[in-house]
Amino acid sequence: MEKIRRNERMSAMLKMLSDSPNRLFTLSSFCELFGSAKSTMSEDIDALRRVADTFDLGKIETVTGAAGGVIYRPVISPAKACGYIETLCDRLSGQERVLPGGFLYYSDILSEPEAVNRMGEIIATEYYTGTPDFVLTMETKGIPVAFATANALGVPLVIARHSSKVYEGSAVNINYVSGSGSIETMSLSRRAVKENQRALIVDDFLKGGGTAKGMVELMREFNVSVIGMAFVMATVNPVKKRVSGEKALMTLEIRDGDPAEAIVRPAEWLCRIG
Amino acid sequence: MEKIRRNERMSAMLKMLSDSPNRLFTLSSFCELFGSAKSTMSEDIDALRRVADTFDLGKIETVTGAAGGVIYRPVISPAKACGYIETLCDRLSGQERVLPGGFLYYSDILSEPEAVNRMGEIIATEYYTGTPDFVLTMETKGIPVAFATANALGVPLVIARHSSKVYEGSAVNINYVSGSGSIETMSLSRRAVKENQRALIVDDFLKGGGTAKGMVELMREFNVSVIGMAFVMATVNPVKKRVSGEKALMTLEIRDGDPAEAIVRPAEWLCRIG
Repeated sequence: MEKIRRNERMSAMLKMLSDSPNRLFTLSSFCELFGSAKSTMSEDIDALRRVADTFDLGKIETVTGAAGGVIYRPVISPAKACGYIETLCDRLSGQERVLPGGFLYYSDILSEPEAVNRMGEIIATEYYTGTPDFVLTMETKGIPVAFATANALGVPLVIARHSSKVYEGSAVNINYVSGSGSIETMSLSRRAVKENQRALIVDDFLKGGGTAKGMVELMREFNVSVIGMAFVMATVNPVKKRVSGEKALMTLEIRDGDPAEAIVRPAEWLCRIG
Repeated sequence: MEKIRRNERMSAMLKMLSDSPNRLFTLSSFCELFGSAKSTMSEDIDALRRVADTFDLGKIETVTGAAGGVIYRPVISPAKACGYIETLCDRLSGQERVLPGGFLYYSDILSEPEAVNRMGEIIATEYYTGTPDFVLTMETKGIPVAFATANALGVPLVIARHSSKVYEGSAVNINYVSGSGSIETMSLSRRAVKENQRALIVDDFLKGGGTAKGMVELMREFNVSVIGMAFVMATVNPVKKRVSGEKALMTLEIRDGDPAEAIVRPAEWLCRIG
């Protein structure tokens, strides 16, 4: 085989690492693939770490020791995260997207790959240190963002359903009070999670917090602890939600009028003022 | 600013390109970012094309002319695609995953980021040339794979629902005959797609084809043409489906017995024999 150049090795390595976020690659697996010495690979990885830092392309981390290797984390810098969410807020604000009843149409953005991947990376960046074992969402609209978050964290996605399905096997069902005050069912396959795991809840929309509270209760049934809750959008009202400690990327306020207007702002924790 | 080395430029460029599949990046945008001449960037891109080919990491394509630039396509080679699906078949075959009623539990694999991304890339590879404008799926289980396909194709994902929702705006509803013979409703927001677009249908499971046929009819209501249909899994029986021209990644056969056994095989178009 022809000798592989440093620029070729480095490009291929960054691509492979970033295709499997948060997965440990051993140095020897790369040595074997590229036919290089460990010292050479270490230099390549140091150079890649600088590339990632310089161009704000995530973080390359090395783990030393016998079980060591290199990990890619798609961490987004605060400036980039805030800037990205600001552009989304601009797209969502105004009159055009307000629907009858004071709802906002944004299903398109919730399944636009580029927007969804960036939102997932921003949420993942916030919760790496919480070391969740999986991401939990409730069907349907939040699934793409929850999947992108799980992808960035390198953990599975778990989807709770409105009812149990024959192809999910035996399930745990709970009842919860939805935003409109009705009693709804939430169902999760027994096979989906294990006792004592750690869950990160991700969903598209937080208003009163009924569904989110349901998910917390569902996790309690499985003896799973909830390490955090993230939402794409939270309404300004009601101020008091049924859950606490949640983080939303944007806040939504609908101003009455004819036509009504949506005011969508980046969350304060993302874009700190001053 | 310090002079950027070729290995740094190339690594950063491949990462940026692969973060936005199928998006055209102009040469001048990279020239500006790296402070390099066009001739230098062209050499870098040629070198990246060889890297992608050598390590089976997708395709780098260049578009010449005034509106030209460079595009990354996460194309998977036939050998890699077949090998990957074979490993999934091994995980799914056997007795452990068979549920009462002859169903197979594989929801975990349908939301495991690495498996989902690879399946999405395999489907996208097959349908690039059909130039779909969006990917259509029906809630819920197929959403992650459909999203990964949309991501690889660089197009939006559109999700049909079982009923219309207030936050989706005005919708088109159709009725269709489900696999169990019952009449079901399928709903899609009017804002979700435009007339004369091209849809690629992606879903998790094909048995009789009732839901798939429903999606085709839904697209007809929007004057959208369906350029293809891809499924993660298709049952061997019934042989005759209500749709045609579909491609599944795997086929499923449940062998009766105590306990029953699942035989999951890679589809013939993926792993050609001989």
